[in-house]
Amino acid sequence: MPEQANRRRFLKLSALMTAASSCTSNKAVEEEGPGQLGKAVSAYGERSPFEKVARMTPDVKNPQVASSRTPLADIYGIITPNSLHFERHHSGVPGINPADHRLMIHGMVDRPLVFTLAELKRLPSVSRVHFVECSGNSGSEWSAKGAPDVIRAHGLASCSEWTGVPLKTLLEEAGVKPEAKWLVAEGADACKMSRSIPLNKAMDDILVAYAQNGEAIRPEQGYPLRLVVPGWEGNINVKWLRRIKVSDTPYYTKDETSKYTELMPDGKAWIFTWPMDAKSFITYPSGGQKVDGAGFLEITGLAWSGRGKIAKVEVSTDGGQTWQAAALQEPVFSRAFTRFRLPWQWDGKEATIVSRAIDETGYVQPAREELGAVRGKNSNYHNNATKPWKIAVDGSVTNA
Amino acid sequence: MPEQANRRRFLKLSALMTAASSCTSNKAVEEEGPGQLGKAVSAYGERSPFEKVARMTPDVKNPQVASSRTPLADIYGIITPNSLHFERHHSGVPGINPADHRLMIHGMVDRPLVFTLAELKRLPSVSRVHFVECSGNSGSEWSAKGAPDVIRAHGLASCSEWTGVPLKTLLEEAGVKPEAKWLVAEGADACKMSRSIPLNKAMDDILVAYAQNGEAIRPEQGYPLRLVVPGWEGNINVKWLRRIKVSDTPYYTKDETSKYTELMPDGKAWIFTWPMDAKSFITYPSGGQKVDGAGFLEITGLAWSGRGKIAKVEVSTDGGQTWQAAALQEPVFSRAFTRFRLPWQWDGKEATIVSRAIDETGYVQPAREELGAVRGKNSNYHNNATKPWKIAVDGSVTNA
Repeated sequence: MPEQANRRRFLKLSALMTAASSCTSNKAVEEEGPGQLGKAVSAYGERSPFEKVARMTPDVKNPQVASSRTPLADIYGIITPNSLHFERHHSGVPGINPADHRLMIHGMVDRPLVFTLAELKRLPSVSRVHFVECSGNSGSEWSAKGAPDVIRAHGLASCSEWTGVPLKTLLEEAGVKPEAKWLVAEGADACKMSRSIPLNKAMDDILVAYAQNGEAIRPEQGYPLRLVVPGWEGNINVKWLRRIKVSDTPYYTKDETSKYTELMPDGKAWIFTWPMDAKSFITYPSGGQKVDGAGFLEITGLAWSGRGKIAKVEVSTDGGQTWQAAALQEPVFSRAFTRFRLPWQWDGKEATIVSRAIDETGYVQPAREELGAVRGKNSNYHNNATKPWKIAVDGSVTNA
Repeated sequence: MPEQANRRRFLKLSALMTAASSCTSNKAVEEEGPGQLGKAVSAYGERSPFEKVARMTPDVKNPQVASSRTPLADIYGIITPNSLHFERHHSGVPGINPADHRLMIHGMVDRPLVFTLAELKRLPSVSRVHFVECSGNSGSEWSAKGAPDVIRAHGLASCSEWTGVPLKTLLEEAGVKPEAKWLVAEGADACKMSRSIPLNKAMDDILVAYAQNGEAIRPEQGYPLRLVVPGWEGNINVKWLRRIKVSDTPYYTKDETSKYTELMPDGKAWIFTWPMDAKSFITYPSGGQKVDGAGFLEITGLAWSGRGKIAKVEVSTDGGQTWQAAALQEPVFSRAFTRFRLPWQWDGKEATIVSRAIDETGYVQPAREELGAVRGKNSNYHNNATKPWKIAVDGSVTNA
């Protein structure tokens, strides 16, 4: 039924296409010329020189203590290419020789252990698709205006197939003492970035990952080892992981006290605000793009939740007055990017489009006003408000 | 129960590990020195200079008419990094400007159509994980000896998340005439590589793909457009796709007559041998690797079937006398790489290990002798025999 309706809509599309009866219009092939050999096979491929999609880097004094953003409106599917995975470094990317790297597990354990990479790789491994999102992502949306495009608004998030050893396996091997309740994970970057993590999360789903999308983790993502803490704020997914100390108390490290806390309207601050709440946004059409004429198009975007699977994404094309369920790309993974799609016939009139995600816990992504009513104006982190875009009659798309 | 058994096995692993009570052994960090900033954020990331994993390229006179191989024993999970996706070119990699590229659909249709990339990207899209495998993959295994390692034996296969438009959508838009039964797909490479495809496959699951693992398809994989023909031999997944002609007959093109056919023992040849039958092999431990001492290790490998999902992979550690079911990484996609894993306590004695795949149709991957009994000695293509590896007492692994 909706399938049939879509089919009828498609027929209108034909008018946009150029009818042709020969193949001579394929200019690229004509220019290449018949019989002219292309390039040879190679050891390690590169993308086309015509492809310019890149991370957005900031113009700052210390680009070692900075972030770069994933161009989420210019990627496809749910996997973020490794070269485009967002970055957030607190003292730059260390150049680690994996042969020299070790992971130590110590503290309240029966047997302190030190693992080489080769030792970790002999152990039972798993591969799972998960997003990592900086808790400062969408921080632009706390302002009255909001960011003009997807990369500035939401680009501090990426999604990969991570491979590694369940942290549970390593902790059981070390033998956690009964009174232990926490662990502190430390990176091998110059600032030794550290975060406290409850032991029950570690025993649930945390990975010590050494691979990302089929290859070794990239230097910017923690080469040769990082924690993957599914659904929890990016900062706690400690990169260049070198040490896990088991304890009975959190450590109140710099990056969980002076940063990555939430100042509430009453002047109190939330600490240990780990899970990233459900978020969604439309990537096409989105701010900065231009729709090339009225007619059929497919609205698409991304959704995710740090609390489990995305259950539903609804899209409005009338500024939130009415909503339709979008199709979700299967399979939907827990705590992973979920691609949504909705066919739409744009009538060429000004329109405001917006999406909202509902996760499997029943949580509904809030509108900006709803979020602001709870959180006030002092927050820098954990903004997951809906993001409307306005399409003008000339097809140009701006922040609504 | 098996979980408990594994746990007990793990405990033996501790002996391999170095107990430690301080973190001073982390040489990399010591050398980096405290407070020394690492590298800055960047627009497009590169892998670590310590990573040398590469495609195997041949030393041939014309490397434009050649193949390169994916190092399947050195990648993780089920996604092949784009830079490592195998290649097979018949006249090299053309350098196509996507702004000039067109896809024409013509022949026995009501409305011949020409699409630009931008027009295709407005249409309803899907992302699906599928392998592509050259039908000449594992050709080495027709010889008495077989290849010494995974890359030489099985490296002409890779697996990606492909994004594009179902070919069905485009054909319905063009309006296929009732008497049509076939189509011929043509690439924009110099040799205009072409293959005939039955229309019912096109209406089932073929994609016109423009993206691979989140980014634009790489030049070596058909930039800017390729067919993805799930489960069928690699050659028919036409790269640099520029034309689809609908017809009532196959075209008997060069690459489905002089090549990609199967010479049988009786002198007759099979043609149109499209689906790749179920295959599996162990990637660790595998030929050319060395196991560093007896004790626990995880046997892992890859399996796939061109006829659907992998239902089961069995592993033998005694040369095929007894078999155990391996764990399959979830979710198992149809016509995609499937990662299998089996914990194993190696006693340090010589052992022959081998895997065999069973797909959802009930098909069982044959042993070399079983395959040879049917296919004889004249085949170059479609070898899917099991591949045993021998582990010597010193841990070195060779072709069994």
